[in-house]
Amino acid sequence: MIVDIINKKRLKEELSYKELEIFFNGYLDGKVADYQMASLLMAICINGMSDEEIFALTKIFIDSGDILDFDELGILVDKHSTGGIGDKVTLIIAPIVASCGCPVIKMSGRGLGYTGGTIDKLESIEGFRTDLSDEEIYEQVKKIGLVITGQTKDLAPMDKAIYALRDVTGTVCSIPLIASSIMSKKIASGADKILIDIKIGKGALISTVEEAQKLSELMIKIGKIYNREVRTKISDMNIPLGFCIGNSLEVLEAIDILQGREDNNFLVDLCYDLSSEMVSMSKGISKDEALLLVKEAVNKGYAYQKFLELVKAQGGNLNKIKVSKKEMYIIAHKSGIINNIDALELGKLSVLLGAGRSSKDQKIDHSVGIKLHYLVGEKVKRGDALATIYVKSKVKLPKSVDIFDIQKKRL
Amino acid sequence: MIVDIINKKRLKEELSYKELEIFFNGYLDGKVADYQMASLLMAICINGMSDEEIFALTKIFIDSGDILDFDELGILVDKHSTGGIGDKVTLIIAPIVASCGCPVIKMSGRGLGYTGGTIDKLESIEGFRTDLSDEEIYEQVKKIGLVITGQTKDLAPMDKAIYALRDVTGTVCSIPLIASSIMSKKIASGADKILIDIKIGKGALISTVEEAQKLSELMIKIGKIYNREVRTKISDMNIPLGFCIGNSLEVLEAIDILQGREDNNFLVDLCYDLSSEMVSMSKGISKDEALLLVKEAVNKGYAYQKFLELVKAQGGNLNKIKVSKKEMYIIAHKSGIINNIDALELGKLSVLLGAGRSSKDQKIDHSVGIKLHYLVGEKVKRGDALATIYVKSKVKLPKSVDIFDIQKKRL
Repeated sequence: MIVDIINKKRLKEELSYKELEIFFNGYLDGKVADYQMASLLMAICINGMSDEEIFALTKIFIDSGDILDFDELGILVDKHSTGGIGDKVTLIIAPIVASCGCPVIKMSGRGLGYTGGTIDKLESIEGFRTDLSDEEIYEQVKKIGLVITGQTKDLAPMDKAIYALRDVTGTVCSIPLIASSIMSKKIASGADKILIDIKIGKGALISTVEEAQKLSELMIKIGKIYNREVRTKISDMNIPLGFCIGNSLEVLEAIDILQGREDNNFLVDLCYDLSSEMVSMSKGISKDEALLLVKEAVNKGYAYQKFLELVKAQGGNLNKIKVSKKEMYIIAHKSGIINNIDALELGKLSVLLGAGRSSKDQKIDHSVGIKLHYLVGEKVKRGDALATIYVKSKVKLPKSVDIFDIQKKRL
Repeated sequence: MIVDIINKKRLKEELSYKELEIFFNGYLDGKVADYQMASLLMAICINGMSDEEIFALTKIFIDSGDILDFDELGILVDKHSTGGIGDKVTLIIAPIVASCGCPVIKMSGRGLGYTGGTIDKLESIEGFRTDLSDEEIYEQVKKIGLVITGQTKDLAPMDKAIYALRDVTGTVCSIPLIASSIMSKKIASGADKILIDIKIGKGALISTVEEAQKLSELMIKIGKIYNREVRTKISDMNIPLGFCIGNSLEVLEAIDILQGREDNNFLVDLCYDLSSEMVSMSKGISKDEALLLVKEAVNKGYAYQKFLELVKAQGGNLNKIKVSKKEMYIIAHKSGIINNIDALELGKLSVLLGAGRSSKDQKIDHSVGIKLHYLVGEKVKRGDALATIYVKSKVKLPKSVDIFDIQKKRL
């Protein structure tokens, strides 16, 4: 029976709700082996799934755990990103949106591979708790309108089990599986309005605009079934998001932006854009109106104030963010204009430094990381330090030429 | 690295010899997990393999174990069938070919699923040994020119491990994997001339003539690389091979045919055809010439004599073949001509009786089985017994109409 289901998908036939349920619930019950699930996942990756199959799988994921209900707290808005190098967007936009009067419950993950995780970043702040219970989440949102915490254990546990297997079997890059995975968690977590930031680029889950659009359509359709408004934004992850990569460094950069000290770079633009989209959804106003609120929240200090409330509510001490004192530098190999910065190479370097994980149970070092001195489009001279590398102990740095594409003029 | 290899195949890229070697040898070494191998196998099933990849995989399978060398015994001819319901062909043609003076070493398997295995059938003969060592094989072929035994443990052990996984992960039906699996065993076992009987039909590994032709071409190409002549024959397994299904019953039917008591049915024709192909290959004569030798071998009793020598050499006692005394019958539901007999349904019934295995470690009962009274094309009357079912204890038999397609005239 189990093998028959695999064979059907291998032959590109549609699986029924019942068949998907037997297979996936059987996996959690131990009746379907890892290798059988891996085989089916690969068949899904290559042969795809119909919309009906995707809706069924999403429902099976949701039903595998608790479904949170925060209706009393009003309209909750959530945001998900498919991941990027140096992506500290959540740290910035969650306080901005909350400070505009839109309650935000954000459940985040840890980093794996080259992209960092919001939870790891927040843990750079000494004492910051990321394991809030459902009750604590409820109370905190009621009080300050904002929570950022780790995913609670019983939210779509099947997705968690499947994701761990996908990670080691070359089956992460499947639009149907990505859509079911993300949407099941968002729906189970009780979000009313959901904004999805789909990253495309080298080393991202999604590599083409077409795939991103397909994923976007699917997520909007799934949202409709559960009466959740879903909006999506497709953005580039080939270049790093901001100047900093590494946990403590990224928190510090987020604080700078929340205080309005940074502007006019790609990351700041993205944060303003995503924030106003979320405020627009939450309040049911136009994005232009929302953008005015967002700018005011930053300029008048409301957003940073909300961040401080968040840190306090979750037990953190902002004075104790450690950045390593040992510095190394990447030096420009020639003069010219920076045409491109390879985010993936920076991601690999950050794992090498110890800022990220290459396997699940690895400990990370919050104090190490990379700080870029220049962004794409800026002029540099041969011998300039292009980046400071905060290290624990000396490492073999990659060559400047392998990260920074410097040209006579912008291509 | 391991996941990168899976991802390449998922994206339909060609894997290098080195990559295949790392992955497959890593599996035997325990560095690649079952679920990773399952994922790659499914990607291979759907995305296929280039000829170069197939040649590489075959070499890796061969190199995983011993490579037997029986050069001193002359030109060895072997035959492989991709399996059929009631397929006792090996029991018949190996003695015929050997009695024509062509040495035969046949390593066979046990049955799994609806198709029986030659080794199981031979074990209906009390005392018959099927676990001969390399030395015993050598001595027996030197003495009587014929051996039928189980595959020795160290022959392509990787194929054995992979096959067990394919069986439970819906990845058996892959032309590249079937070709590598069969050819690696045949080449490692030292056969000089190899005849492959490719079965097509419902429930067979191969379902279309096109696939069978592709498999045939591949196996001939692989043979060329190792300087082995390969011929193939594509035959139908939608109808049962002969009158009997079940271990003891099939041995008795084989004896009847070896004694020349049966003729003019599909099974006998197939055996004469395959035997003369093998004799033609072995002796380098035309197939017509070979057919004369084959007919003579049967008619003059040489073939049956060789079978008796085989049984004696391997310790069997032909007087002790047990067939159950409890009989049940399938009765014709209407009068007419038998237009078709569903081999797959008969295969399922044989497993239900206990003649076959549905899981690897299951014990089988040699004494039970099915004996057809009529073959396709014969006239029957409503109420006729169409088949005798030899049972251990009473079972719920399928309806006549589900196995026998009876029509007013032959369609």
